[in-house]
Amino acid sequence: MSNSFGNNIKITIFGQSHSEAVGVVMDGIPAGKKLDMPRIAAFLSRRAASGELSTARTETDEPHILSGLMNGVTCGAPLCAVFENANTKSKDYDALRLVPRPSHADYPAYVKYGGFADYRGGGAFSGRLTAPLCFAGAVCIQLLEQLGVFVGAHILQVGNAFDRAFDPLNVCREQLSALPADKLRVIDPNAAEKMREEILGAKADGDSVGGCVECCVLGVPVGVGEPMFDGLENRIAQAVFAIPAVKGIEFGAGFELCAKRGSQCNDEYTAREGKLQTLSNNCGGILGGLSSGMPLIFRAAFKPTPSIALPQRSVELDTMCENELQIKGRHDPCIVTRATPCVEAAAAIAVYDLILSARS
Amino acid sequence: MSNSFGNNIKITIFGQSHSEAVGVVMDGIPAGKKLDMPRIAAFLSRRAASGELSTARTETDEPHILSGLMNGVTCGAPLCAVFENANTKSKDYDALRLVPRPSHADYPAYVKYGGFADYRGGGAFSGRLTAPLCFAGAVCIQLLEQLGVFVGAHILQVGNAFDRAFDPLNVCREQLSALPADKLRVIDPNAAEKMREEILGAKADGDSVGGCVECCVLGVPVGVGEPMFDGLENRIAQAVFAIPAVKGIEFGAGFELCAKRGSQCNDEYTAREGKLQTLSNNCGGILGGLSSGMPLIFRAAFKPTPSIALPQRSVELDTMCENELQIKGRHDPCIVTRATPCVEAAAAIAVYDLILSARS
Amino acid sequence: MSNSFGNNIKITIFGQSHSEAVGVVMDGIPAGKKLDMPRIAAFLSRRAASGELSTARTETDEPHILSGLMNGVTCGAPLCAVFENANTKSKDYDALRLVPRPSHADYPAYVKYGGFADYRGGGAFSGRLTAPLCFAGAVCIQLLEQLGVFVGAHILQVGNAFDRAFDPLNVCREQLSALPADKLRVIDPNAAEKMREEILGAKADGDSVGGCVECCVLGVPVGVGEPMFDGLENRIAQAVFAIPAVKGIEFGAGFELCAKRGSQCNDEYTAREGKLQTLSNNCGGILGGLSSGMPLIFRAAFKPTPSIALPQRSVELDTMCENELQIKGRHDPCIVTRATPCVEAAAAIAVYDLILSARS
Amino acid sequence: MSNSFGNNIKITIFGQSHSEAVGVVMDGIPAGKKLDMPRIAAFLSRRAASGELSTARTETDEPHILSGLMNGVTCGAPLCAVFENANTKSKDYDALRLVPRPSHADYPAYVKYGGFADYRGGGAFSGRLTAPLCFAGAVCIQLLEQLGVFVGAHILQVGNAFDRAFDPLNVCREQLSALPADKLRVIDPNAAEKMREEILGAKADGDSVGGCVECCVLGVPVGVGEPMFDGLENRIAQAVFAIPAVKGIEFGAGFELCAKRGSQCNDEYTAREGKLQTLSNNCGGILGGLSSGMPLIFRAAFKPTPSIALPQRSVELDTMCENELQIKGRHDPCIVTRATPCVEAAAAIAVYDLILSARS
Repeated sequence: MSNSFGNNIKITIFGQSHSEAVGVVMDGIPAGKKLDMPRIAAFLSRRAASGELSTARTETDEPHILSGLMNGVTCGAPLCAVFENANTKSKDYDALRLVPRPSHADYPAYVKYGGFADYRGGGAFSGRLTAPLCFAGAVCIQLLEQLGVFVGAHILQVGNAFDRAFDPLNVCREQLSALPADKLRVIDPNAAEKMREEILGAKADGDSVGGCVECCVLGVPVGVGEPMFDGLENRIAQAVFAIPAVKGIEFGAGFELCAKRGSQCNDEYTAREGKLQTLSNNCGGILGGLSSGMPLIFRAAFKPTPSIALPQRSVELDTMCENELQIKGRHDPCIVTRATPCVEAAAAIAVYDLILSARS
Repeated sequence: MSNSFGNNIKITIFGQSHSEAVGVVMDGIPAGKKLDMPRIAAFLSRRAASGELSTARTETDEPHILSGLMNGVTCGAPLCAVFENANTKSKDYDALRLVPRPSHADYPAYVKYGGFADYRGGGAFSGRLTAPLCFAGAVCIQLLEQLGVFVGAHILQVGNAFDRAFDPLNVCREQLSALPADKLRVIDPNAAEKMREEILGAKADGDSVGGCVECCVLGVPVGVGEPMFDGLENRIAQAVFAIPAVKGIEFGAGFELCAKRGSQCNDEYTAREGKLQTLSNNCGGILGGLSSGMPLIFRAAFKPTPSIALPQRSVELDTMCENELQIKGRHDPCIVTRATPCVEAAAAIAVYDLILSARS
Repeated sequence: MSNSFGNNIKITIFGQSHSEAVGVVMDGIPAGKKLDMPRIAAFLSRRAASGELSTARTETDEPHILSGLMNGVTCGAPLCAVFENANTKSKDYDALRLVPRPSHADYPAYVKYGGFADYRGGGAFSGRLTAPLCFAGAVCIQLLEQLGVFVGAHILQVGNAFDRAFDPLNVCREQLSALPADKLRVIDPNAAEKMREEILGAKADGDSVGGCVECCVLGVPVGVGEPMFDGLENRIAQAVFAIPAVKGIEFGAGFELCAKRGSQCNDEYTAREGKLQTLSNNCGGILGGLSSGMPLIFRAAFKPTPSIALPQRSVELDTMCENELQIKGRHDPCIVTRATPCVEAAAAIAVYDLILSARS
Repeated sequence: MSNSFGNNIKITIFGQSHSEAVGVVMDGIPAGKKLDMPRIAAFLSRRAASGELSTARTETDEPHILSGLMNGVTCGAPLCAVFENANTKSKDYDALRLVPRPSHADYPAYVKYGGFADYRGGGAFSGRLTAPLCFAGAVCIQLLEQLGVFVGAHILQVGNAFDRAFDPLNVCREQLSALPADKLRVIDPNAAEKMREEILGAKADGDSVGGCVECCVLGVPVGVGEPMFDGLENRIAQAVFAIPAVKGIEFGAGFELCAKRGSQCNDEYTAREGKLQTLSNNCGGILGGLSSGMPLIFRAAFKPTPSIALPQRSVELDTMCENELQIKGRHDPCIVTRATPCVEAAAAIAVYDLILSARS
């Protein structure tokens, strides 16, 4: 452990790729909130596999509510949602049991759990666990909107194809709403076509490709975040790294700041309509871990899906003999197309939890 | 809050830049450990201001142990160390009370704490708080070494000057030990000179410059890290973002992976001397949040010190009138020179805490 | 919240009396443990309603495992077990929605959750939630036994009927094993008959009766418990008060010590077979929150089931008019008969969690 | 660990009886609160040793604030207060190092910390640690009063001398204020004289005597407390058991309820001035872990001070030989006279933390 996250709400995620179900318990959700279930379903469908860009393992991804609601309204008790694991083909993984797939968690999980880790479909390390993460995020997104906070992510990069970045000063709620709900969720429609080519090119080669998701949170009140270890950056990072394949995160201008001077990137203040604003937003809306009131912007780097059809070198864990591995199963040539709701979900959970801190 | 970190050890940091003291309580340190106090002092001196590259505010930075030791040996009770704040010039900050410094936490802290935030020297958001962080890190580093784990960071970048990066496959304990203890802590001595020029150039212009610290942790046993929210990446990121000015973190090949294909960056396995190793280390020693047994490598991006001598635009918080601001005080032209022990400390605390999880 | 408990294992309980299911997620259970499911079922059946001494609401109480196992063996991922709520008669509670039952949580829950609390069958405050608590406890009991730790509770008191108390120095594993698995779980068979009379007498009068459960934990290694707030007493108390109707807890001689002198009740040491033992055990096996190595003994006081058939005074929450209330539903005349597994479960969870702390 | 308590405020206590200092860090205290330091001092003086009823070890018990204040007002940063340990006579304890005192934590602490526990004056298990606990409690009491919540405890029992109990329905703020601030804090002045006789009698015999503290919290809003593990009973119990020598706690009618019928002790509702009230208060103001709005009442049982002057049997830990022990040092014949502020402090911390939960 810990499969739990949050100080004011507590999200606990459970399940393995091929266990009976995966699910989430959300403790601390306020009572009296009517959940918009069709909207949750729509959000989840953005994560679900579908079409030529995704794996052939399709799941209904329909959340089943076990507790926390009465007549569709939250009652203050923990909200538990589960997703059945129906479309499992555990046989595909028998060969993998003792031959760890490169860049998957197989080997360290095997060691950590003394050989008892569930190896079927990546077990507890599977991207399947992002279904309950997204459910929790969808709930938090609805609760955030009631507080005037909006979350939206797009695909900034797939391989060598790039979308236009958010304008860190002027990104607005309408732009977030206008992002397409399909797998190639971009600002610039031309970017989608190039990304499709990158992904289908990799797929045709039995390969996979990485990418980058950019996320924006609008409307966070000034001063949200808790120093020193529970600032917005600390907690968003902690949540986002729960998404498999994320290998980096940066806020505002991020790594570009390493080459800059203070005079180039300090965000000077001005007053507009009686409110403080900054003339630039290199800090990504976060100062000292606290929200500055400007758009909160961050980017998450995704490695290419480690499952590829090409032969790879590995080692048999029992004999320690080298062994070429060819992964069969069903996999995504680019996980980024399914990752934007996951990044939004992680951000929403972290931000909502911290907003509750600030209100107490 | 939270100024606490850790599940198995609990680090609680307190203090403001100009309060009587800053300090740390470490709960959960095992009993029977003799602390090497001179080594802790040497570690802290790497963080202390000194020389032309740093601020003129120098503090003795001598930790004063209030509890947790008997005859210099840990006794199982919480270890508390405090650092007096001696060299404070609170007057310097009177003018700043209502005119927030750009890219500092002044404004959101003012809002968060209803105008009662301690504004003197950055208050609780000051880099001064990294003194107790480094103390805690120095203790964890000693405890980690007894478990065969070694931590070392160098300055990878200052402005446009770059050090050689760690070799992710072959970085070794000797290389970490050989890193210079001075402010320009680099692998390649030539890099130091270029970095010095970057910093002195910025200083001469009344400006500041950003940079990047690369950190390596060697010897972490395979399988350390707790899914999904307490993996190594989640927790190291959470800890590292507690260091003021950090705006990004990446593990292994990080953001470079966005443009790569799986076949280019998957870390294939081989067997060497009866042990699994990988032929590359693009994952930075972490798979699924768990240590892979390979060198753990990450990089943290630091923005330029926001305090610069140049005039900047700001706004008076009481009148909402715009007001040009000229920061006097005493500041670092490049915080990165003092940041390597902070990054090592944050990494050591996170890794040590997770190693204790794995052992229970 | 918090419906979670534990620092080394994390138990999260969810559900309401009439939601689709109640359940528990156990995070941090070690991998490689084969769960003895028939034994868990037997344990749960001690809690289940049955016979003339219990409510007529009977549930199958069969745990359904959603995750955490592979081939019946723990795999390191969170263990989730759910219990369907089948035998619900929500209609019985419609009349109660706005007329709080005396000594139930109805009224404060109504206020706390702004009128949205699930009022059906006590909602999240129902004794039904002890089913997942007992599941978690049953798992911990099995894990504890592998460490040589044994837990057993009996009914010490029902109304004015008393069982023989544990001998605090000489209670042994065999005595715990010999405790009957039925509803009147006592040391002295004569006590059972008197207790039955107390319960059936109350039932005949449309009334209920209180009682006391005494619990013993044997084999806890010396030094388990974490000062100051996570000592054995702190944590066992925190867990035991999660059982509805518990109003008091005492360890060792407990409240009797208020009238005693130190010379009468200090537990002096002697050496037996090279081991320290005490000549008395008034501290109940706990000193300074730590286990002393002697039998750990505590008692929990249960109030009478607040649901009684007799008419009671109450108030309509919407009109604030007084209103006589007559509870229909189906209720236990004495909850204590079903409480011994709950107390054992709470103790086992708290002790197991602290043993893991001590081992790290 | 854990020496920390609280989810919304976090209290971290450190120090040993003979370390340089004991202290507390309070994280999460709201900003903008002026602390009434003389009142804090007055509260602490109730805990301090003084007069014929206490130990001869007297400490100034003056808190020294290291952080968290600016001009005497909380600034949102963690509040750290330390108490120097001045009047230590470590030599007194040399003889005890390997001969554990009966009913003290010496022996389990020795085992737990592998022989490295600080044995001087009870180390981290000393009653000295209640000084920082009381400081934290005094702060919470001030914060609670601003919310209309008042805390007061009296000595209900010392040996065979009893004070009048609080009237659970009608105890009022004035009664709490009128409780004497001296060591024999009772409602009925006659009780004080009898208690004095009990204590001086025990002292004359080189013995000690136990007792009971009853505590009342008034004004807690309805619905405070978090099910199932963070209800008022769970959390107050967890906090109160942090006070050395506490062996039992009961809420409302507590253990008396074991012998009662529901019809005798259910708290029926009535309406008074448009508000719900109960006609009795056997539940002690807590239902389902939540505040009912009625006076919150609990009692804590204290064992006699284990340090007595009479010879006692013990065992040398290195040789395992039995050895008669005669404790010299300086000790309290009855700890209860100094315990009422500790109980108030523990209650205040727990209640304040839960009130913050309820407000978020």
